[in-house]
Amino acid sequence: MEEDHSRREGNGFEIEDDDKEHSVSMLREPFLVRNIKNNIILHRLPLLVPIPALLKALIMSLFPRLAFPAFCSPMAFRIADNELFKQDWRSRKKVEIYQYVVLKWTLALLIGLGTGLVGFFNNLAVENIAGFKLLLTNNLMLENKYYQAFATYAGCNVVLAIAAAALCAYVAPAAAGSGIPEVKAYLNGVDAPSILAPATLFVKIFGSIFGVAAGFVVGKEGPMVHTGACIASLLGQGGSRKYHLTWKWLRYFKNDRDRRDLVTCGSAAGVAAAFRAPVGGVLFALEEDASWWRSALLWRTFFTTAVVAVVLRGLIDFCRSGKCGLFGQGGLIMFDVNSRKAFYSTPDLLAVVFLGVIGGIFGSLYNYCVVKILLVIVISLLTSCCSYGLPWLSKCIPCPPHLAEKCPTEGRSGNFKNFQCPPNHYNDLASLVFNTNDDAIRNLFTSGSEKEFHLSTLMVFFFAIYCLGIVTYGIAVPSGLFIPVILAGASYGRLTGTMLGPLSNLDAGPCALLGAASFLGGTMRMTVSLCVILLELTNDLLMLPLMMLVLLISKTVADCFNKGIYDQMVRMKGFPYMEAHAEPYMRHLVASDVVSGPLVSFSGIEKVGNLLHALKVTGHNGFPVIDEPPCSDAPELCGLVLRSHLLVLLRGKKFTKQRVKMGSGIMKSFKAHDFAKAGSGKGVKLEDLEITEEEMEMYVDLHPITNTSPYTVVDTMSLAKAAVLFRELGLRHLCVVPKTPGRPPIVGILTRHDFTPDHILGLYPHIKPHK
Amino acid sequence: MEEDHSRREGNGFEIEDDDKEHSVSMLREPFLVRNIKNNIILHRLPLLVPIPALLKALIMSLFPRLAFPAFCSPMAFRIADNELFKQDWRSRKKVEIYQYVVLKWTLALLIGLGTGLVGFFNNLAVENIAGFKLLLTNNLMLENKYYQAFATYAGCNVVLAIAAAALCAYVAPAAAGSGIPEVKAYLNGVDAPSILAPATLFVKIFGSIFGVAAGFVVGKEGPMVHTGACIASLLGQGGSRKYHLTWKWLRYFKNDRDRRDLVTCGSAAGVAAAFRAPVGGVLFALEEDASWWRSALLWRTFFTTAVVAVVLRGLIDFCRSGKCGLFGQGGLIMFDVNSRKAFYSTPDLLAVVFLGVIGGIFGSLYNYCVVKILLVIVISLLTSCCSYGLPWLSKCIPCPPHLAEKCPTEGRSGNFKNFQCPPNHYNDLASLVFNTNDDAIRNLFTSGSEKEFHLSTLMVFFFAIYCLGIVTYGIAVPSGLFIPVILAGASYGRLTGTMLGPLSNLDAGPCALLGAASFLGGTMRMTVSLCVILLELTNDLLMLPLMMLVLLISKTVADCFNKGIYDQMVRMKGFPYMEAHAEPYMRHLVASDVVSGPLVSFSGIEKVGNLLHALKVTGHNGFPVIDEPPCSDAPELCGLVLRSHLLVLLRGKKFTKQRVKMGSGIMKSFKAHDFAKAGSGKGVKLEDLEITEEEMEMYVDLHPITNTSPYTVVDTMSLAKAAVLFRELGLRHLCVVPKTPGRPPIVGILTRHDFTPDHILGLYPHIKPHK
Repeated sequence: MEEDHSRREGNGFEIEDDDKEHSVSMLREPFLVRNIKNNIILHRLPLLVPIPALLKALIMSLFPRLAFPAFCSPMAFRIADNELFKQDWRSRKKVEIYQYVVLKWTLALLIGLGTGLVGFFNNLAVENIAGFKLLLTNNLMLENKYYQAFATYAGCNVVLAIAAAALCAYVAPAAAGSGIPEVKAYLNGVDAPSILAPATLFVKIFGSIFGVAAGFVVGKEGPMVHTGACIASLLGQGGSRKYHLTWKWLRYFKNDRDRRDLVTCGSAAGVAAAFRAPVGGVLFALEEDASWWRSALLWRTFFTTAVVAVVLRGLIDFCRSGKCGLFGQGGLIMFDVNSRKAFYSTPDLLAVVFLGVIGGIFGSLYNYCVVKILLVIVISLLTSCCSYGLPWLSKCIPCPPHLAEKCPTEGRSGNFKNFQCPPNHYNDLASLVFNTNDDAIRNLFTSGSEKEFHLSTLMVFFFAIYCLGIVTYGIAVPSGLFIPVILAGASYGRLTGTMLGPLSNLDAGPCALLGAASFLGGTMRMTVSLCVILLELTNDLLMLPLMMLVLLISKTVADCFNKGIYDQMVRMKGFPYMEAHAEPYMRHLVASDVVSGPLVSFSGIEKVGNLLHALKVTGHNGFPVIDEPPCSDAPELCGLVLRSHLLVLLRGKKFTKQRVKMGSGIMKSFKAHDFAKAGSGKGVKLEDLEITEEEMEMYVDLHPITNTSPYTVVDTMSLAKAAVLFRELGLRHLCVVPKTPGRPPIVGILTRHDFTPDHILGLYPHIKPHK
Repeated sequence: MEEDHSRREGNGFEIEDDDKEHSVSMLREPFLVRNIKNNIILHRLPLLVPIPALLKALIMSLFPRLAFPAFCSPMAFRIADNELFKQDWRSRKKVEIYQYVVLKWTLALLIGLGTGLVGFFNNLAVENIAGFKLLLTNNLMLENKYYQAFATYAGCNVVLAIAAAALCAYVAPAAAGSGIPEVKAYLNGVDAPSILAPATLFVKIFGSIFGVAAGFVVGKEGPMVHTGACIASLLGQGGSRKYHLTWKWLRYFKNDRDRRDLVTCGSAAGVAAAFRAPVGGVLFALEEDASWWRSALLWRTFFTTAVVAVVLRGLIDFCRSGKCGLFGQGGLIMFDVNSRKAFYSTPDLLAVVFLGVIGGIFGSLYNYCVVKILLVIVISLLTSCCSYGLPWLSKCIPCPPHLAEKCPTEGRSGNFKNFQCPPNHYNDLASLVFNTNDDAIRNLFTSGSEKEFHLSTLMVFFFAIYCLGIVTYGIAVPSGLFIPVILAGASYGRLTGTMLGPLSNLDAGPCALLGAASFLGGTMRMTVSLCVILLELTNDLLMLPLMMLVLLISKTVADCFNKGIYDQMVRMKGFPYMEAHAEPYMRHLVASDVVSGPLVSFSGIEKVGNLLHALKVTGHNGFPVIDEPPCSDAPELCGLVLRSHLLVLLRGKKFTKQRVKMGSGIMKSFKAHDFAKAGSGKGVKLEDLEITEEEMEMYVDLHPITNTSPYTVVDTMSLAKAAVLFRELGLRHLCVVPKTPGRPPIVGILTRHDFTPDHILGLYPHIKPHK
């Protein structure tokens, strides 16, 4: 165990002690978490098919450490109520409670401000970089220098892609990918290391900018959610102790519960910033992210997203005056779709049902592919080739006669791309592919312009985007899933709308919106929050009933095949996620069936040597404390003590020669915030302790730091019931006590790992998980 | 206890056994629930100032039984897992699980359909009745028959009011008032009798129609929420056993948890039907109503509200062809407000802040008054006088020159009321007062028409509506609070907007909307759901940031003064509502401190006589079962048995002469659905049992119906922690077990009543509840 520890330290990540407490999962079953680190490189590179050695070398230098450090430690969302904390709470003055409340709201304000600013900066940068790139290429093409144009285009993309990937690989590997599964797991109680570290934040912001600007089929909303969560977590930690940026007031937030609330606010702010959808952000956090929810949190989250909305509105107004370079309408997506119809006929509804069913199937297929394929190829070059090569497949279309915009657009980034076409003609495929993702979506959603895109154009675009989207998710840059899915869905919807044109009266623009909704429903499997996000994006409430219908259908269809994409990602990353429902087979087991392994417990007043030994040989994070005959009449469960508190207590060296109670003495020499939850990997470590041989023989009183009322269940309680209790109360340890008298006062301790299917099915292989 | 019971039965309400189990609240402290019945008449009639004897007699005949039967029984949202139910679950076939799923969704569909139809019917009736009344009066006034006009108007109102009040008084007193507090309490686990009975549904629908049509300042959304909940509950019960309308499949829904889910769907459907706001409905149920929430429920609730939205849209489309009498634009409110502004200047924002602060103050004052004053005066006549008399205060205004509508409107119910004015003039106050509430709101929200209402008109209207709204809430007709609050808020907002016209560029229409938002925020104290409901009502997403700002401010301001209106109503009605947070003083107590009274427990195999005696002399709903030496080595807690299950078991008469286990025999002669939760007041009663003297001496085996893994806490656990556990798991009984060995295996049972402030402060009067 020790060697393992040092090896991990050598890896350069900050890793907390993992928490395989009182479980035998490590011994019997190669546990997923522990496996993933070694497997993931192989897993991600299965298809490194014969490509030139040069490229191979390039890739290997770019993605050397894709291994995601998935050693994670669970958190407890209950504040341990030991004697010391209770005393601290009692002595807390009224003014301190006000401080807490003021600080809570100030932090919510700051999270909103920070996320709003980052969101705007993100968009500004993407619009300017991508706009410059497209403008350059376009100008070269207007001069008929097609090869130079391609070289410029591909060159820009490769440079940006390398920048994004290098940031991820060398600075913060945790920043790769969407980020939503990580935030989701964090809010479920799994604290994977460096998920919310400053370096991750930095890489997430810039990696996302470079990735999106490089023209990858990735979005920015997943990274924005992660960014919001990082900002919230850093604000709550009060800056970094490494850089001497701490703030004394923030001690109130040094516990898992308050930090979780902040991270929830942050993730809502991220969605709000990505889509300018404040209500949608709150609902997203509620529906997808958070595992626990209090209605007080709704109110605070709403405040945060309101701040984001106000910041964004202000900054966009500022940009309207043209001071923001190439930042035009775009960026912060707000599409205007008008259905201009209040009634729908039966064929319309049938068309919608069709959209929903197919959307659900394609969506679940997308999930299947994303999870299975995850391969790294030269996505950047491929994307460049596609977006430069595809438009040649399309014919030129004469410009529509009456148009406010100039057609074809020249000298600026516009929508009617001339590409290789003669004057007064435009290439419809180029206006989709050779553009930023946001603008492509806007073009697809335009209504009243059935003829703008040919059927063949839409078909080519749909297949290109669908495949590119799946392939791109595997690369190690911060990448959101919403935009690729919306893009594929919108082109599919528009395709269907154009094809069904003779049958149904639905306009092609709303059809594209419904197609996007059906794909989103099929991949993400959210309902209310997606609906609100799309409404806020399109500003058209009359579409609501159709949108609800299509979401319901596509989710139902897709649910027949597999789970939502984020659930799959969480599982694939190996987080020990607690599901809201207990598995059916848990009903046949009782709590004591899964408790196993030797139980390590302490006396109320324990020898220092014993404590140190136990801390050294086990990785447990919580130990039961049992009062024995000199202290009590019979062995009696006193409570639970945490490893981190034990370490702080031992560092304080308040030892006695004899086995005597000295509670008040200890209380005076410690303060409650000594025991506060430290930042990730920053707590006292076992190696930091310097205990002499003489001290080893002395005693220390554990009572003041023992949580005397831990949650308990009797050993005959059904495991399903215990799992629900564990999950709903957000526990970290659950004590199992004997029902029949006359046995030792504690049977074992249940932790998160004991409820994982891997553990249970490892113990009872004959149980069929899905019957 | 028995006499008490029979007295209550004589009252004609269906009353379940009340649940003061193991609590001494009844003895020490005059408990609120028990007090309220006697006090409420006095409470509601404090200001019966000298009015003519005739009127007094009329009132007393109208409102003889305002007493709300607040004897309520708590529910458990966990399914008891005794041996019988476990066996039933194990033997449940795959096809039965599909049946359950299909049925679940079918019920959601039916709830949506039912609520949508009722909502539409409600509006159709109100529009036609009120329209006819107004048309009649208007026509008489055009002929200058002012006194006849008043007589007609007042006569119609009084007849409608009497109809509404009589329905409430004689058929279903539980239907009076808003209904939201009752639904909220039900979803918290308090099952007040006949809250969801068929008679209540009937009265709620027709009472609400008559009340709104009578011109009272009441809304229909509260009643719609209650209606939705009733429909859901009745569908779940599978019709009425009284009328032989039961359905076998529905046995899956005969438990508290599934019924709670249905009621949650129903309440969301109610909001959706009242406002045509499907997303708002879901959020309302989430934010205000439900105490527990599962994300699976979000999905089902959303489906229900989607059905409502589709039904309403279809029916309104049908009515557009003019087949629905006087049903015009109105009824199902959907206002079109256009701000036509994307930027806001600093004065605009200051105006919004001002609106928010004042709105919050007025809102909390409203709450204060509604709760305090609750008096019955001749509201109907007063309202008639106001709406007929007030317009005389206003001057006539010439019709605006270019108008699509005819001005003044004649021969139909329109907005530009001629009233007493010369031709081509209209009375602006009459177009607010002398109109249905929905139309008045629509008029106030109109933008681009600053001159339509005079300042003085708005001021008079605001004060009239504010006072009438408060006064009206006290009367015993189904009455919603949203519409009065929106009406008062909109007039206040428009007033402010008109006054601030020179300073700010905000249009008067949006100002009215913001004013309504500020009042709603000040009274209801919801945030996200109000925001979404208002957005769905007005179809203008550009107002979102301002609306959020105003809601945040008004809620914050109002929270300084008192609690939200529904929380106050719940408290006033004396429901033992469990708050999400434990009170601070609970931290100083432990679980065993509040457990008191003699504990009645049974042996695993108990004498029938003992069971009957215990059932007779106590009102407890749950009893601990303790296995004693012949069965086990030492006294040992076996589990918990419910009163309702005991009664069914006793009726089955599977008794033995000797103290022997006979588990399997009992299982064969009973089926799980014998023990299913019966409808309110329909279970086996103690009086129904006919036990002979001989049988009294026999034994019965309680093991098969004992829940062997009840949730337990140790007696030293802090009361705050136990309260959180109790609330978050939705329990009905929580067993307190001793921590130290060698004591009896159970200390006591905690129930909902043991956590109420009244009980705790009764036991420990020295504790200061708010320090």
